[in-house]
Amino acid sequence: MKVGIVGATGEVGRQMQICLAERVKGIEELRLFASPKSAGQKIDFQGMECTVQVVKEGCFDGLDYVMGAVSNALSKEYRPMIEKAGAVYIDNSSAFRLEEDVPLVVPEINGDDALKNKGVIANPNCSTIITLMAVAAVHQNLSPIKKMVATTFQAVSGAGAGGPIELHEEVIAIEKGEPVQPKVFSAQIAYNCIPQIGSMNDNGYSTEEMKLQNEGRKILHAPEMDVNCTCVRVPVYRSHSISATFVTERPVSVEEAEEAISRFPGVKLIKDGLPMPIDTSDQDIVYVGRIRRDLTDPNGLVLWCCGDQVRKGAAANAVQILEYIEAHK
Amino acid sequence: MKVGIVGATGEVGRQMQICLAERVKGIEELRLFASPKSAGQKIDFQGMECTVQVVKEGCFDGLDYVMGAVSNALSKEYRPMIEKAGAVYIDNSSAFRLEEDVPLVVPEINGDDALKNKGVIANPNCSTIITLMAVAAVHQNLSPIKKMVATTFQAVSGAGAGGPIELHEEVIAIEKGEPVQPKVFSAQIAYNCIPQIGSMNDNGYSTEEMKLQNEGRKILHAPEMDVNCTCVRVPVYRSHSISATFVTERPVSVEEAEEAISRFPGVKLIKDGLPMPIDTSDQDIVYVGRIRRDLTDPNGLVLWCCGDQVRKGAAANAVQILEYIEAHK
Repeated sequence: MKVGIVGATGEVGRQMQICLAERVKGIEELRLFASPKSAGQKIDFQGMECTVQVVKEGCFDGLDYVMGAVSNALSKEYRPMIEKAGAVYIDNSSAFRLEEDVPLVVPEINGDDALKNKGVIANPNCSTIITLMAVAAVHQNLSPIKKMVATTFQAVSGAGAGGPIELHEEVIAIEKGEPVQPKVFSAQIAYNCIPQIGSMNDNGYSTEEMKLQNEGRKILHAPEMDVNCTCVRVPVYRSHSISATFVTERPVSVEEAEEAISRFPGVKLIKDGLPMPIDTSDQDIVYVGRIRRDLTDPNGLVLWCCGDQVRKGAAANAVQILEYIEAHK
Repeated sequence: MKVGIVGATGEVGRQMQICLAERVKGIEELRLFASPKSAGQKIDFQGMECTVQVVKEGCFDGLDYVMGAVSNALSKEYRPMIEKAGAVYIDNSSAFRLEEDVPLVVPEINGDDALKNKGVIANPNCSTIITLMAVAAVHQNLSPIKKMVATTFQAVSGAGAGGPIELHEEVIAIEKGEPVQPKVFSAQIAYNCIPQIGSMNDNGYSTEEMKLQNEGRKILHAPEMDVNCTCVRVPVYRSHSISATFVTERPVSVEEAEEAISRFPGVKLIKDGLPMPIDTSDQDIVYVGRIRRDLTDPNGLVLWCCGDQVRKGAAANAVQILEYIEAHK
């Protein structure tokens, strides 16, 4: 198998290499692409020396898969080149997620959708993946979700490699009594919460907030599901957390929900203790806990979940899509 | 006017002195009480030297008001002594908040309830005060709130003076590569979120989470209001933030809600920019923003609010209760 990664030196691109090494056997060639400033850099992948190259005509020829970890603009630019080369493009950008012909896939939830791809498969938004992993067992095995209210606690690494650097620099500056100069975030993130991620739509929701409804409907095959989301950046290095209340068609008991969630692949039910971002970092499992009745709706349930948004929320999920396709050949 | 403070050297007790100095004129005597280990300490209050004393028989005699910033257990112990002395007891503990004869008061919302006191007035829970300040304008002036889903982002200073010290020590330890040893919190709070505050009830909600429903019903005079709350500790030094979705009896437009909230005393509507904990610290105003339609309910609205939980969430609110009673004599 021959695999390429575009955006190979960014936060998600680097994590894709780690997840490929951990999860996928039989990779004969890994071709790494990045911007001119990273070109020429040599990266070891399981004993193979890979030289980072820039994208140019014919560079994807011979590849079976290309994993995308670039901006929407670059993803749109590269897509026709990857399609021309005949590789399957598994793209982490949001450029094609809502296109009808592009499957949007969380393998544990709707892996079969990946098999219907026409050359491009989209990897969903990070907090959407983590939230849906937590609730999918109830939706698919007990009763369909009609609506959901979610509030996210999103780690700084969700903003790319610059996020953690900025948080750390701010903490050091505050320690020294020096002024803080936000660049990646719109305000100081150290010891603060910033209640906006992405740009604002006319309806008062941010682009990030609307993804949970728009992408959630497609992944869960629930075109009528209504979601109200609030996305907040918090001073956590890694792993997003989500507080979610969801209402199902028929009432589901806490015990039924716990049973279904505990059996769902890729999810760990935490009964003693609490799911926390420091415990879910650097691994691919979504932790779910605090499952209880919604006091405002007899058909509602409340839960708290955490997951590593660079791994399950991005790189690991993309690699799992590749695995799923390979396993169903 | 003669005022006493029990628990005068703790986080809230110290803030009560600051708020009294800022807001209340004509204090002839301030009598400060604390544990034996603080007794004898001399504290300046507007040029008066106050010597910290321990509580003993007759110590409250001659006082008009006693402000309480002690544990539930101590508050129960002191109450009969304060009542015997004939002082009005404004208590920040949760010991008496739900007692029928004890008004539970946020002066901007239900100040008149304070006038019906029989010697004891309770100061509500911190995140309850901040959340209700944000939604009260809609509830009282537009349409009653039937239900609410809230998720809190609570600062470490809400756990008392030890909270900020622990966060700071952890940040320093992590910087040095040393192990973190949580004492105040159940887990590392630096760069983490802990989704439990208080102890767990049988219904799966924490004591802190149930306060928003139980105290909210009493303060808003809304005995049927249902509230589902998730309380989370975040690595912020000061000011709690709350993401709230609430459903009213009749639909209220975003414009109506913004208009009502902007006119409500003690609240600042943030239209350009975002309410953030670093901006609301060390002042008494609750910031409210991100007001938008709830996409899951035609009668629902969503907002984000922040406020200093040591000030408006505790000390300032208690002092405002005293002010309200004095102003209505």
